[in-house]
Amino acid sequence: MNLLTVGSVAFDAIETPYGKTDKIVGGAGTYICFSASFFVKEQGIISVVGEDFPLATLQEMKDKGVNLEGLQIIEGGKTFFWSGKYHNDMNSRDTLATELNVLGTFDPIVPESYQNIDYLLLGNLSPEVQRTVIERLAVRPKLIAMDTMNFWMDIALEELLKTIQLVDVIIINDEEARQLSGTYSLVKAAAIIQAMGPKIVIIKKGEHGALLFHGENIFYAPALPLADVFDPTGAGDTFAGGFMGYIASTDDYSFENMKRAIIAGSALASFCVEKFGTDRLKEITKAELNKRIDSFVELAHFQMKEI
Amino acid sequence: MNLLTVGSVAFDAIETPYGKTDKIVGGAGTYICFSASFFVKEQGIISVVGEDFPLATLQEMKDKGVNLEGLQIIEGGKTFFWSGKYHNDMNSRDTLATELNVLGTFDPIVPESYQNIDYLLLGNLSPEVQRTVIERLAVRPKLIAMDTMNFWMDIALEELLKTIQLVDVIIINDEEARQLSGTYSLVKAAAIIQAMGPKIVIIKKGEHGALLFHGENIFYAPALPLADVFDPTGAGDTFAGGFMGYIASTDDYSFENMKRAIIAGSALASFCVEKFGTDRLKEITKAELNKRIDSFVELAHFQMKEI
Repeated sequence: MNLLTVGSVAFDAIETPYGKTDKIVGGAGTYICFSASFFVKEQGIISVVGEDFPLATLQEMKDKGVNLEGLQIIEGGKTFFWSGKYHNDMNSRDTLATELNVLGTFDPIVPESYQNIDYLLLGNLSPEVQRTVIERLAVRPKLIAMDTMNFWMDIALEELLKTIQLVDVIIINDEEARQLSGTYSLVKAAAIIQAMGPKIVIIKKGEHGALLFHGENIFYAPALPLADVFDPTGAGDTFAGGFMGYIASTDDYSFENMKRAIIAGSALASFCVEKFGTDRLKEITKAELNKRIDSFVELAHFQMKEI
Repeated sequence: MNLLTVGSVAFDAIETPYGKTDKIVGGAGTYICFSASFFVKEQGIISVVGEDFPLATLQEMKDKGVNLEGLQIIEGGKTFFWSGKYHNDMNSRDTLATELNVLGTFDPIVPESYQNIDYLLLGNLSPEVQRTVIERLAVRPKLIAMDTMNFWMDIALEELLKTIQLVDVIIINDEEARQLSGTYSLVKAAAIIQAMGPKIVIIKKGEHGALLFHGENIFYAPALPLADVFDPTGAGDTFAGGFMGYIASTDDYSFENMKRAIIAGSALASFCVEKFGTDRLKEITKAELNKRIDSFVELAHFQMKEI
């Protein structure tokens, strides 16, 4: 096992222009694990759920190679719940409800079997919890990546900056990069964020693809133009999970391999939005994934000639 | 001569967060010709100016191989003038003044020497004027491309649709594609617009690059991430001019070559925004252009491995 994820395993209730769900399984950690499982045979997760969480989902995670020793089930506790409604453009959403429940007092325990992992992915979560996990690992992983969101910039910036300082890779969206850096240009934003600690900055731009700033190098990953985006929930987590799963399975975090990892993550994210929740993600075959990755290759390929 | 452009030659007064200009030379036709001149040695322009337009600029155009037989200079007339102010994000702008002047009564005359051209680019202009030029060409060009904007969709949609029906390539931005098609997804928008006539739809997304829909094929062209965008005026025209200049000079409008043309146009547009007006565009060397094109190649390049 060389990949460990910290992230919420939760319930969501989602409304999009295409429909509406009751409470369904969601959470950054869930999406990340399902996504990474396309590349790693074994992985660990540090998270917490209440007694109300479906064992069937935990079994599905196990079946995909997720070691659940680090997943705490709190007796009598209730699982984290988020509810949101997407606007017509699918790029903006309103949060309708956030019930932290067991996540509110989450103390991330690192089981002995998770020590010495090489790759750590800190899913979007309180920066204090994220940092605690880093501190509880006896040996620093080869590569630490983190996700975060504007919410933490608003209410816990100081804590967030302390965590950011400790990581190698930060994965955020364009708005978040602008807020964190206080600047509009993403090139300048990336440089400012790199100076905060992470030498690698990945800026997700939704339907506009993603930018990878790797030291001095820049890669522009396209997004697959989609006729329909059914439900964007979890697409960012799926992207991050695919990215880190790919890196962990290849054990290579060079610029060239990170490009491949971003394409792999983007391909998985493009499936994620096709159905509500984790449904589509769970049913993808390796053949489908390879075909989707080929679409990205075709989409971005061009060959210049001498002018 | 195998490239002909119809487009305004005009005055602009521009305000951006970086500064402010007095009346300077602008106009879609001007940007297009300067841009296309990197690829074609000779080209024609159909346009109109007043007596107040600087002869020095006309001489600069001639020096770049622009045949001005189709450029009418109206005695006692005043040149089209546009003034605008860009917001901090540079993606939106307010029009402060629009003085049509000689453009208001423009009757586009096609000189005999322009007949039999192979490539026609209709810059953003009244769809009636655009269509008149097509009608006044004795032989239909091999490829007709057009630019347009939301302004014409608002006030002259019927005329616009008649012109769109006659062209092979339409070049518009994402907002315009959404307005023209009445749909949000750019994949669906492109299909709807293709059904209106043009088999090739190019959707410009500013800092997010451009999409080429060529029949069934799609290409995602990246945009070069820039630290500063000084003045976006004319970037779209420069893109279109570079695109058509490249196509005309290679005499090849296959999907593969259109990709190259889009990269060439994007590279030129990335220079255009570095200074106010046409200044930067006029001073680029072939070596600088090639270097910039290489940056696009590096930016977009990745090589997948078997998963």
